[in-house]
Amino acid sequence: MASPTQKHDWRYRLHEIIFEADTPGGKAFDVMLIVSILMSIAVVMLESVETVRQQVGHELRLLEWGFTILFSIEYLLRIVTIRKPHRYIISFYGLVDLIAILPTYLSLLFPGGQYLLVIRILRILRVFRVLRLVLYLREGEVILQALRGSRRKITVFLFAVVTLVTIIGSLMYMIEGSENGFTSIPAGIYWAVVTLTTVGYGDIAPVTILGKFLATVVMIMGYSIIAVPTGIVTAEVAQVYKFIDKQSTQACRECSLEGHAKDATYCKYCGAKL
Amino acid sequence: MASPTQKHDWRYRLHEIIFEADTPGGKAFDVMLIVSILMSIAVVMLESVETVRQQVGHELRLLEWGFTILFSIEYLLRIVTIRKPHRYIISFYGLVDLIAILPTYLSLLFPGGQYLLVIRILRILRVFRVLRLVLYLREGEVILQALRGSRRKITVFLFAVVTLVTIIGSLMYMIEGSENGFTSIPAGIYWAVVTLTTVGYGDIAPVTILGKFLATVVMIMGYSIIAVPTGIVTAEVAQVYKFIDKQSTQACRECSLEGHAKDATYCKYCGAKL
Amino acid sequence: MASPTQKHDWRYRLHEIIFEADTPGGKAFDVMLIVSILMSIAVVMLESVETVRQQVGHELRLLEWGFTILFSIEYLLRIVTIRKPHRYIISFYGLVDLIAILPTYLSLLFPGGQYLLVIRILRILRVFRVLRLVLYLREGEVILQALRGSRRKITVFLFAVVTLVTIIGSLMYMIEGSENGFTSIPAGIYWAVVTLTTVGYGDIAPVTILGKFLATVVMIMGYSIIAVPTGIVTAEVAQVYKFIDKQSTQACRECSLEGHAKDATYCKYCGAKL
Amino acid sequence: MASPTQKHDWRYRLHEIIFEADTPGGKAFDVMLIVSILMSIAVVMLESVETVRQQVGHELRLLEWGFTILFSIEYLLRIVTIRKPHRYIISFYGLVDLIAILPTYLSLLFPGGQYLLVIRILRILRVFRVLRLVLYLREGEVILQALRGSRRKITVFLFAVVTLVTIIGSLMYMIEGSENGFTSIPAGIYWAVVTLTTVGYGDIAPVTILGKFLATVVMIMGYSIIAVPTGIVTAEVAQVYKFIDKQSTQACRECSLEGHAKDATYCKYCGAKL
Repeated sequence: MASPTQKHDWRYRLHEIIFEADTPGGKAFDVMLIVSILMSIAVVMLESVETVRQQVGHELRLLEWGFTILFSIEYLLRIVTIRKPHRYIISFYGLVDLIAILPTYLSLLFPGGQYLLVIRILRILRVFRVLRLVLYLREGEVILQALRGSRRKITVFLFAVVTLVTIIGSLMYMIEGSENGFTSIPAGIYWAVVTLTTVGYGDIAPVTILGKFLATVVMIMGYSIIAVPTGIVTAEVAQVYKFIDKQSTQACRECSLEGHAKDATYCKYCGAKL
Repeated sequence: MASPTQKHDWRYRLHEIIFEADTPGGKAFDVMLIVSILMSIAVVMLESVETVRQQVGHELRLLEWGFTILFSIEYLLRIVTIRKPHRYIISFYGLVDLIAILPTYLSLLFPGGQYLLVIRILRILRVFRVLRLVLYLREGEVILQALRGSRRKITVFLFAVVTLVTIIGSLMYMIEGSENGFTSIPAGIYWAVVTLTTVGYGDIAPVTILGKFLATVVMIMGYSIIAVPTGIVTAEVAQVYKFIDKQSTQACRECSLEGHAKDATYCKYCGAKL
Repeated sequence: MASPTQKHDWRYRLHEIIFEADTPGGKAFDVMLIVSILMSIAVVMLESVETVRQQVGHELRLLEWGFTILFSIEYLLRIVTIRKPHRYIISFYGLVDLIAILPTYLSLLFPGGQYLLVIRILRILRVFRVLRLVLYLREGEVILQALRGSRRKITVFLFAVVTLVTIIGSLMYMIEGSENGFTSIPAGIYWAVVTLTTVGYGDIAPVTILGKFLATVVMIMGYSIIAVPTGIVTAEVAQVYKFIDKQSTQACRECSLEGHAKDATYCKYCGAKL
Repeated sequence: MASPTQKHDWRYRLHEIIFEADTPGGKAFDVMLIVSILMSIAVVMLESVETVRQQVGHELRLLEWGFTILFSIEYLLRIVTIRKPHRYIISFYGLVDLIAILPTYLSLLFPGGQYLLVIRILRILRVFRVLRLVLYLREGEVILQALRGSRRKITVFLFAVVTLVTIIGSLMYMIEGSENGFTSIPAGIYWAVVTLTTVGYGDIAPVTILGKFLATVVMIMGYSIIAVPTGIVTAEVAQVYKFIDKQSTQACRECSLEGHAKDATYCKYCGAKL
C-alpha cells in the first residue's frame, strides 16, 4: 500500500509508530501510551480523595495538565499522519481519544469537570490490540453475539420490568406512605427496583405488616424473574456455540454423511478417507 | 368485511381511527394516545412528590381530571363504534381501559385513590401494536412460552421455598427473639425471605452467634437454591429454541399438515413423500 | 386386596377414609385435615405476635391444644387402622405426623417450644396427593432428579466456598479488626458469606481502604462464583430433559432408524407405518 | 517399584504411612492429620474471639504452638522420607504444608500473624484422597474444566465490568459528592461494585434524585449483566457434558486410539472397523 517514496516520509514513519503495533517503535509507543493512560486515571482518582487533594492537589493538577497536553499532541499527530483524518475523527477510537482530553480544558470553565477524565479508561481497550490478545477479542465476540441475539428479548423483558416496578412502587407508596420513607411514587419505584434486583440497600424498607407482606411477594417473584434474562442469555450463548461447532463440519466424499469430529481423518460411517 | 354502505358510516370511520393503526388517522390517534398516557402517568407521579404538590398540586389535579375525561370519552367511543361492545368490555384491553379511568372518580370518595392511576402504564402495551414491533412481540412470545412450560416446576419450587422459609423463620424467632428484631414468626419469615432471595436489607439481621451460624447456612443454601429456577427457565428457553429450529415450515401436499422435522423425507402423519 | 369380611370391618373403613383419597369420605377427611393444619399454623404464628398474645393469648393456646389433641387422635387412629403400624411410624409421613404434635406437649416442659409447631407445614405435602396433582409431583421429580444428579458437584463447590470464606474472613479480620465490627475470625467468615452470596445486610461492612479494596475483589469474584451452581443445575436439568425426550423414541420396523417425533404415525425416513 | 531391601527400610515404611493412604497405618495417619488440622483451625478461630482470648488465651497459644511443632516434624519427615524432596517442596501440597506452619513462627516477629494459620484449611484438600472420594474429584474436574473453558470469556467480561464501574463510580461521585457519602472516585467505584453485583450493603446509598435515577439504571443493567457469566459457565458445563457423552470408552483395535463418537463404526484415525 505504501510507495517507496512514502517509506522515507516522516508522516509515514510516524503513522506506523502511532497507529500500528508490529514494529518495535510502534509497540514501544503503545506500551508507553497505556502506561500513561493508567497513570493519568490514577492521578484523577487520587485528586478526588480529599486528604490527598489538600496535600498534593496542586502537583496532581499539574500532572493532569501534563498528561492532557501529551494526549492532545498525540491526538493532533494522529490527525496529521493519517490519510483520511475525518474517518478517524468520527470513528469510535477517534471520539474516545477526543473525549479523553476535553474534560481538562472544560474544567477551566466548569470546575469539577476533570473527573470525567476517567472516560480515558476506554482508551485502554487498545490494550487488546497491542498485546495481540486476538483470542480474547474473539471470545468477547461470542459474548457480544449472544447479547446481540438476545437484544430483543431483553428489551421486552426490561419493558415488562419497568411496568411491574411502576405498579409495585405506587402500591407501596399508598401502603407505606411518607412517614415510612416512601416519600413519593418515584421513591416507591426506586425501592421496587432495589428489591426486585435483589440489591437491597435497606435505606428504604417496608415497616407496616401489609407492606412487608407485599415485599415478601415481590422478593419471591423477583426470584423467578431474575431467572429470565439468565435463561435467555444462556440459551443464546449455547446457540452461538452450536453455530461455531457446526461451521467446522465436513461431509464424507464417499457417503456424504456429516457430523465428523474435528480431529477425524476417516469417515466414521463408511471408513473412507476424509 | 365492511359493506359499501358502511364505508360512509361515521361509526365505521371512527372505528378505523380508534381501533386500527394502518391508516394515517389511526396512527396519529394511537401516537397521541400513547403520549397522553405517558403524560398522565407523569402527572400522577409528580403529584405524589410533596414539594411539587404544595406548589402546583391544584394544577396537577386539574390536568389529571382532564386526562381522565379524555380517556372516558375515548372509552365510550370505543364501546359505541365497535360491533360487539360486550366482547371489547370483557377483553384484556377493555378491562385495562376501564381500570385506567376509574381511580380518578374513586378519588372523590377515597382520597389518595388517584395514585392507582399508574395502572394506566398497562395501556402502553398498545405501543407494540402501533409501532409494528411484531418482531418484539414474537420474542416476548418465546419468553412467555418458556415461562408457561416451566409454570408447574416453578410452582412446586415456590411451594418448597414457602415451606422452607416458614421453618427457618420460626427457628430464627426462637433463637433470636424479640429483643433482636425478630418480633414474631411472620417477622422471622420476612427475614428468611429477605435472606434466601439475597435481597438482604439489613433492617433485621441476626445478632446471636447461633443466629449468625444459622444465617450462614441459610445463605449458602440460598446460593444453590437460586440456581434451581434459573436452571428450569434456561432449559425451557432452550427447549423452545430447539422446537423453533426443528419445525420446518414445510407443509405436506397430501394432508397439508405442518410441523415436520427438517430432515424428514416423508410426512409423519400420512406417509406421503414431502 | 381386601377380603369380603374386611369390607364390613370398621378398621377397614376408617383406613380408607384416613389413608385414601378416592372415596367421598376420604376426600372430605383430607380436605378437612389440610384446613386444620393451615389454621393451626396460623394460630402458632398469631400467638408469636406480642400484641395479639397479650389480647387473645389464652384463647390461642386453647385452640393450639385443641388442634394438637385432634392431630393426636388422628395419629393414633392411623396406627390402629393400618396393617403394618411400624412401617407407617418410621415412614417420612409417619415421622412428620409425630413431630407435628410433639411440640405442644414439650411446651409444658420447655416454654416457647410450641413455636416448633410450624413444622406442621410439612404435613401440607399431602395436598399434592389429595388434589391429585400428580402432574406437579412429576415436575417436582424433574427438579429432584436434577439436584440429585448435581449433588456431588454442588458438594465439591460448597467445600471450595467454605475454604474460600474461611481464608477471606481471616484476612478481613486482620485488615479491619474489632474496631470496625470484624470482632473475630468467625465474624469475618460471616461477613464473607454475606458478601459472597450477594446478600449484603450491611450490619458489618469494611471501613478501611484496604478492606474496601478486598471487598471489591471478593464481590467481583462472587459474581463469577454464583454462576457455577447455576451452570451445574441448568446442565443437569437439560440432561433430565434430554433423557425424557430420548425415552419416548421408537424405531421404524422397516428401516430401523430412530428419532421420530412423538406424534409421528409414519417413519419420516422411509414412509413405513410405525 | 520398591526393591525387597527397601521393604525393611524405615524410610520406606514411613513414606508409606505419611504419603500413601492404602495401608491401615497410612489411613490412620491421614485421619489423625485431618483431625489435627481441623482442631488447629478451631484453636485459631477461638483465639480471635476476644472474650475467649481473655479467659484461655494462654492455653490456646500453647495448643497452637503444639500443633505447629507437630506439623513441622511432619513436614521434615515428608522431606526426609521422599525420594525427590525438591519436587515435593515445590509441589502444590508441599507449599501448602510449608505455609501452614510459617505463621506461628512469624507471629514471634509480627504479632497477629498467627491468624494466617487458617490457610491450614487448604491442607484439608487431602481429605478427598484419604476418603477415596475419587468420584467427587472427577466431578470437581468437570467444574474446573468448565471454568478453564470459560476463562478467557470471563476475563473479557471482568475487564468490561471494571471499565463500567470506573465510569459509573466517577459519575456518582460528581452527582452525589462527599456530603452524601461518595467521598472520592474510589468510594464511588466501591459503591458501583456493591450495586452492580447486587450485594447492596447500604453503607453508601444515593440521596439526590439524579443519583437515585442513575442507581436505578445501574441496577436494572446489573440484572442483565449478571446473566452473562452465568450464561457462559452454563454453556461450558453443557459442552463438557456433551464431550463426556460423546466420548465412548471404546479403543480402536488397530491403532488403539480412544475418543470415538458413540455412533462410530470405523476408527476416525486409521479407518479400521471398530
